[in-house]
Amino acid sequence: MPNPTAAMLVIGDEILSGRTRDANMHHLAGRLTEAGIDLKEVRVVSDDAPAIIAAVQSLSAAYDHVFTSGGIGPTHDDITADCIAAAFDTPIDIRSDARALLQAHYDRSGQEMNAARLRMARIPQGATLIDNPVSTAPGFTLQNVHVMAGVPSVFQAMVASILPTLTGGAPLISRTLRVVRGEGDIAGPLGDFAAQFGDLSVGSYPFQKDGVYGSNLVVRGSDAARLDAAMGVLAALFPA
Amino acid sequence: MPNPTAAMLVIGDEILSGRTRDANMHHLAGRLTEAGIDLKEVRVVSDDAPAIIAAVQSLSAAYDHVFTSGGIGPTHDDITADCIAAAFDTPIDIRSDARALLQAHYDRSGQEMNAARLRMARIPQGATLIDNPVSTAPGFTLQNVHVMAGVPSVFQAMVASILPTLTGGAPLISRTLRVVRGEGDIAGPLGDFAAQFGDLSVGSYPFQKDGVYGSNLVVRGSDAARLDAAMGVLAALFPA
Repeated sequence: MPNPTAAMLVIGDEILSGRTRDANMHHLAGRLTEAGIDLKEVRVVSDDAPAIIAAVQSLSAAYDHVFTSGGIGPTHDDITADCIAAAFDTPIDIRSDARALLQAHYDRSGQEMNAARLRMARIPQGATLIDNPVSTAPGFTLQNVHVMAGVPSVFQAMVASILPTLTGGAPLISRTLRVVRGEGDIAGPLGDFAAQFGDLSVGSYPFQKDGVYGSNLVVRGSDAARLDAAMGVLAALFPA
Repeated sequence: MPNPTAAMLVIGDEILSGRTRDANMHHLAGRLTEAGIDLKEVRVVSDDAPAIIAAVQSLSAAYDHVFTSGGIGPTHDDITADCIAAAFDTPIDIRSDARALLQAHYDRSGQEMNAARLRMARIPQGATLIDNPVSTAPGFTLQNVHVMAGVPSVFQAMVASILPTLTGGAPLISRTLRVVRGEGDIAGPLGDFAAQFGDLSVGSYPFQKDGVYGSNLVVRGSDAARLDAAMGVLAALFPA
């Protein structure tokens, strides 16, 4: 059975303007690979409702899972929840269990519940909440879209909350051979090798360090024995 | 006149698997903002021809400029140039001026020109070469798509080569007010402020550091006097 597929949607003007460097894509990519879910595409869009809605609809239709990052805080530019509801033509309103979570959190910390904070309890009808052990305000899953915060520590906690609930295929494992030769010398035999092992993924990631040119050849698959066989062939092709 | 719009397409399995953390998006975002070009969307796709071709066609039709990163080296998984040609239904072959650049480079460095390296001289018909002062193998521009290398030092050099040739609008400038109050307290008046200055972009970027909660309020526009007026109003709303 092939692995489930996934896409990520990063929402935020601050990434596109260069003000903030996104950290969530790299984190999610690593966790999904470990879980045996194939991340096939990432999109970054601005805080613009038509752009968010169109991307959610397109990615939700094309992949098994969509993970979003950003735009679920209390300020006027936090429009993700409303856009997800609109994308699926679903009503959205303040939900009592989400409100109770927030109320208890603010009671504990002595902060005031106000209209802005109450926005974070707006959840599309039929969604499942995603636990936020860092700062309480929950994410949610609607259909195959998992909606999470943009703040990296909260995003990571929400990924840890949601991942075990998703059915992953066999985890992808990888083997790496470091070859100290230029990619131009490697490319011919490596192409033949990739054709011979068409069931595996073969990548070449060149490096240049301290005047040394080389490449890390990475072979990925879900069957360890098959990978080991491939690495034996690869090592014979490029002896140290 | 509104600023030109742009999208970026990052090509590479190594980003989606979490093996490599992309650095080029953040670099390009910053340079485009300085140049007065609005980066509206980024997509990351794998080394898969149909995915690359579909993304190029979609982004090229939707935005004034498309910048791609990755997949123009000598190995079998470097398929970007062929995909760009296919996206525009344009022939592609080894081009004599690109080949001459590479030949001179290999002659200088005492390396052998072979079939793999010659792949890097494959340029779609009608394209303009993009200078690569770092490692010679050129990028190219076909229609509104600028095709560049994935290695960050080379990508950055190519961006520096191409940007001055593009007509930018007025550069976006930004002003920031740091407010040491929780976003939930800020959100109400900030929303009113954003509505009052509808011609400017207003963002709230929360932070939590050493136990202090606050937010950087960032206002962007192309008119410095208008920005200064807005920041006066904002500072009065949130006195230190």
